[in-house]
Amino acid sequence: MSHASRRRYAYLGPSGTFTEAALLSLPEAEQIEGVAYPSVPAAFDAVRGGECEAAVAAIESSVEGAVTATIDELASGEPLMIVRELLLPISFALLVRPGTDLDSVKTVASHPVAMPQCRRWLGQELPDVRWETAASNAEAARQVRDGVFDAALAGAFTAARYGLEVLADDVHDNVGAQTRFVVVTRPGTPTEPSGLDKTSITVGLRDNHPGELMEILEEFARRGVNLCRIESRPTGEAMGKYYFCIDCEGHIADERVGEALLGLRRNSAHLRFLGSYPRADRQAPTIRPGNTDEEFAAARNWLAAVRDGNR
Amino acid sequence: MSHASRRRYAYLGPSGTFTEAALLSLPEAEQIEGVAYPSVPAAFDAVRGGECEAAVAAIESSVEGAVTATIDELASGEPLMIVRELLLPISFALLVRPGTDLDSVKTVASHPVAMPQCRRWLGQELPDVRWETAASNAEAARQVRDGVFDAALAGAFTAARYGLEVLADDVHDNVGAQTRFVVVTRPGTPTEPSGLDKTSITVGLRDNHPGELMEILEEFARRGVNLCRIESRPTGEAMGKYYFCIDCEGHIADERVGEALLGLRRNSAHLRFLGSYPRADRQAPTIRPGNTDEEFAAARNWLAAVRDGNR
Amino acid sequence: MSHASRRRYAYLGPSGTFTEAALLSLPEAEQIEGVAYPSVPAAFDAVRGGECEAAVAAIESSVEGAVTATIDELASGEPLMIVRELLLPISFALLVRPGTDLDSVKTVASHPVAMPQCRRWLGQELPDVRWETAASNAEAARQVRDGVFDAALAGAFTAARYGLEVLADDVHDNVGAQTRFVVVTRPGTPTEPSGLDKTSITVGLRDNHPGELMEILEEFARRGVNLCRIESRPTGEAMGKYYFCIDCEGHIADERVGEALLGLRRNSAHLRFLGSYPRADRQAPTIRPGNTDEEFAAARNWLAAVRDGNR
Amino acid sequence: MSHASRRRYAYLGPSGTFTEAALLSLPEAEQIEGVAYPSVPAAFDAVRGGECEAAVAAIESSVEGAVTATIDELASGEPLMIVRELLLPISFALLVRPGTDLDSVKTVASHPVAMPQCRRWLGQELPDVRWETAASNAEAARQVRDGVFDAALAGAFTAARYGLEVLADDVHDNVGAQTRFVVVTRPGTPTEPSGLDKTSITVGLRDNHPGELMEILEEFARRGVNLCRIESRPTGEAMGKYYFCIDCEGHIADERVGEALLGLRRNSAHLRFLGSYPRADRQAPTIRPGNTDEEFAAARNWLAAVRDGNR
Repeated sequence: MSHASRRRYAYLGPSGTFTEAALLSLPEAEQIEGVAYPSVPAAFDAVRGGECEAAVAAIESSVEGAVTATIDELASGEPLMIVRELLLPISFALLVRPGTDLDSVKTVASHPVAMPQCRRWLGQELPDVRWETAASNAEAARQVRDGVFDAALAGAFTAARYGLEVLADDVHDNVGAQTRFVVVTRPGTPTEPSGLDKTSITVGLRDNHPGELMEILEEFARRGVNLCRIESRPTGEAMGKYYFCIDCEGHIADERVGEALLGLRRNSAHLRFLGSYPRADRQAPTIRPGNTDEEFAAARNWLAAVRDGNR
Repeated sequence: MSHASRRRYAYLGPSGTFTEAALLSLPEAEQIEGVAYPSVPAAFDAVRGGECEAAVAAIESSVEGAVTATIDELASGEPLMIVRELLLPISFALLVRPGTDLDSVKTVASHPVAMPQCRRWLGQELPDVRWETAASNAEAARQVRDGVFDAALAGAFTAARYGLEVLADDVHDNVGAQTRFVVVTRPGTPTEPSGLDKTSITVGLRDNHPGELMEILEEFARRGVNLCRIESRPTGEAMGKYYFCIDCEGHIADERVGEALLGLRRNSAHLRFLGSYPRADRQAPTIRPGNTDEEFAAARNWLAAVRDGNR
Repeated sequence: MSHASRRRYAYLGPSGTFTEAALLSLPEAEQIEGVAYPSVPAAFDAVRGGECEAAVAAIESSVEGAVTATIDELASGEPLMIVRELLLPISFALLVRPGTDLDSVKTVASHPVAMPQCRRWLGQELPDVRWETAASNAEAARQVRDGVFDAALAGAFTAARYGLEVLADDVHDNVGAQTRFVVVTRPGTPTEPSGLDKTSITVGLRDNHPGELMEILEEFARRGVNLCRIESRPTGEAMGKYYFCIDCEGHIADERVGEALLGLRRNSAHLRFLGSYPRADRQAPTIRPGNTDEEFAAARNWLAAVRDGNR
Repeated sequence: MSHASRRRYAYLGPSGTFTEAALLSLPEAEQIEGVAYPSVPAAFDAVRGGECEAAVAAIESSVEGAVTATIDELASGEPLMIVRELLLPISFALLVRPGTDLDSVKTVASHPVAMPQCRRWLGQELPDVRWETAASNAEAARQVRDGVFDAALAGAFTAARYGLEVLADDVHDNVGAQTRFVVVTRPGTPTEPSGLDKTSITVGLRDNHPGELMEILEEFARRGVNLCRIESRPTGEAMGKYYFCIDCEGHIADERVGEALLGLRRNSAHLRFLGSYPRADRQAPTIRPGNTDEEFAAARNWLAAVRDGNR
């Protein structure tokens, strides 16, 4: 496929990041041209502005938690829509310039979230090393190539791109660590329901009355919609003011999810639909009795008949 | 107006009952022919069978509570619909055959709910009297006329009908006692919303799980719909099995009430709509923020737009 | 046992009522002298005043529902305490003076709750009979003996007491009907926990705010305490003002029940403890995880340690 | 005061960080010797190990949200206890080596949370600058001094420590940004109640059943205890497994807070008390009717009396 006809996807660069690896794992990877951006906001703005069709961004680490920059970018500015999520196992290697041995490593650089994930190994093998931070792990690798630092924590696949070699593999403490990535586009019709879907929203409190967050959660619970995740984020107005990023089971096309969103729309503030998309973990939703689409439809028919006097 | 063209309304007879007084207080009283029946079930069956257009029945006393016969009749058999409620102040008089004085009263008869309402007066003035029960207060008056009993507790207005006289008026203990009556018809389009309405239903539990009654009440509370009354009634299947008769603020045409009923329809059993009708006490409903019809409509429009990708 | 040394138990007389049958079914029946009273309030006042040690009263019919006179008497006046409940199967017979045949029965008398339970049989066998009410079924039998009425609906065991005979047995419509009776005493230490207990209370709303009844029920639900029954009763102040009579699983000595009552005490009005006593139906309670006495004790120990700084 | 007798407080160094500024703003600052550590975990371990009496750490930014490293450190390892919180207004300056002008600034370094707070200013004044990250803003200043970078974003007070000068002040976008810091010690008796307190806990789900998070929040809401903040954090076990860090109004010595914690202890997992301490914002708590200490005590007295039969 010629370069010109490829679909442009934005990602956090430079080449060699886990985000690029996530992009390359997409089924449509062969039709994609990855375009590196220096930050998540820059990658998202490329979608908003039409330079790219989609962007790929890390949104959560199973070890470090939410990637707040991604969440805050989705919650503000021109709306975007999540159309897909994917899970990538995360394993770190220690990358060095060819010929470097462990004794000569005095500085280790990485993205700030990488370091704590390798704390135990570093403490044992490189107790006296100085830790340095970089905008991404790939950026750290680039700086190792340029001689700024001695070693970088990054994916083993990053080594080749910067002419480095893997001095030690699997240096992370948590076996089984994963990062969750999302693919976002400009808003449009939500992804077709797959039966194993997730819905993401951001929502704020209307007047901050006692128990208001609980009432938001009840909108889901009353319809038997399970929550996957809830994240409090500052609105930036003042200390103690938050908005919430919530992932729930199900698709906006599902009656029970639609009803929960209707309830939120009436009883909260700043509700933003971030997308309905297939779950990467393929877990089936549990639907509480009384909350299937058929039961919703039957109840509506009953109500309409009663209101019309046709019983 | 000729007798033939009058609308026939069934009531608990004989002539002279509080129920007849309620019927006569209706705005349409002049166009009505009251038809006395020996029991509430008989009066309701007259409506079901088409002999009468409507029936009037007591449903609640502010002193004695629910008139369970009326509630059970509405909950079972062919459906009926409440189209109106009215409140009647209840005051009892002691009726006797002309010439009877207090010393010669040895027996006092009344409907069973009348007696406890006059207990204090009877205890002071007629401590040694024998209490007798009758199917209605008017029936007690009739039996006094026939010489079966010495005195009857009934409305003062009943005296004339049976050639009795009022020996003592206002013999009831509770000043301000009221009885609530309902007018029922065959089911049809609910009464036009007046803005000051009430809705009545009966509903059963689906599987009697812990907290199920509370979940039923939450369907109302979540939409800010206030309950006026809840009555537990036995289903008759076994000790400990109940259904519930619930009155709430608002009209089935109101979005918040309709949504609460939809929730009940999906999450309970045997839901029966008994009617939406103007409140006799003319109290205005309180609507919680987020639950006006306009807010429901706006939320639905938002959801439809998001589902269609038109934001 | 000599008459003088017997324990006096009050009951709704005259001799031959189902209440007397309930009293006679008590394990301590041989040590009891039953004392008949003309009404439930009179029987309860006999206990309050010290004339009797205990009283037996019907509190609920599986067919007709709550015996509101009993409930209202427990909710008001000098406190009493329920120490036991018992279930009695209810079956009605048609009692007549010896020699009477069905054709000559023109009037049938009974307590008002008996009649509806035999409606179908009466409709088929005695369609034209006149129904008369009496203060109790035994009183109806007495009046049949005295020639006031032709037949009485009562327990078959009542016949002998009044020189009547059973013209037809099992004339009630609902097979399996039961009445629940309670034994009440002056307040004291609650009955020893049996492991299969029930607790009864009456409680009012504090300020009648929306959702207040639901909040009362949540005090039970939050501790996994199942409700057996809830009855709304008018306070008598005005139409629409209620108090609630609630039976729940468990004993006041159980931590989860005690905590629920503490919550009610703080968040409601007019809480009255009516007693903890063994369930007549011997159903075992379900206890939600986290709500055993052991878990309550462990949590309290933890809190005390944390407050004292001893972790 | 001699150096030897000073109380040692650990903080995130090097000298010149906002954390050091927070430490210096403590009332006891004159008696304190600040000891700089390279990371929050290192500072906390210094308290755990007894090298320092207390540690000061940032826990939340009004712009960037939770400082997750601090939260995760409090939630795991040997328990620590928060004894105080303080709020520091955050304002950034651009620090350079003396004589540097804006045109010659090609690289700007700072802690990762500082950069986004100055994005607008940097975009306008230094659109082509390269952003670099450092372990702290003071560390960035140190590296500017050493010639590694051209400019640092840090507090203006940091300039003097590293021989730098303020090229531009107030370069942050959000006026009024604040950072919340906590002072932690080894566990002991909680801080004396001040009447304007806050309580912090971490808590996990017991079995991840639907609605479980809502039930946790209900333990607070039922006692009218307002939440200040809730943060979801990964447990590290697997993607989608979280624990929660919750701040609520009130002190563990308050009955309503104690009861909420008792409920959590029974109905959740891994509950950890992080401390009760005066609120930095001095906001008075709202106490729902029925939830004062006096009402709790009165209810307990009532229950004890009823259980003992002494009413």
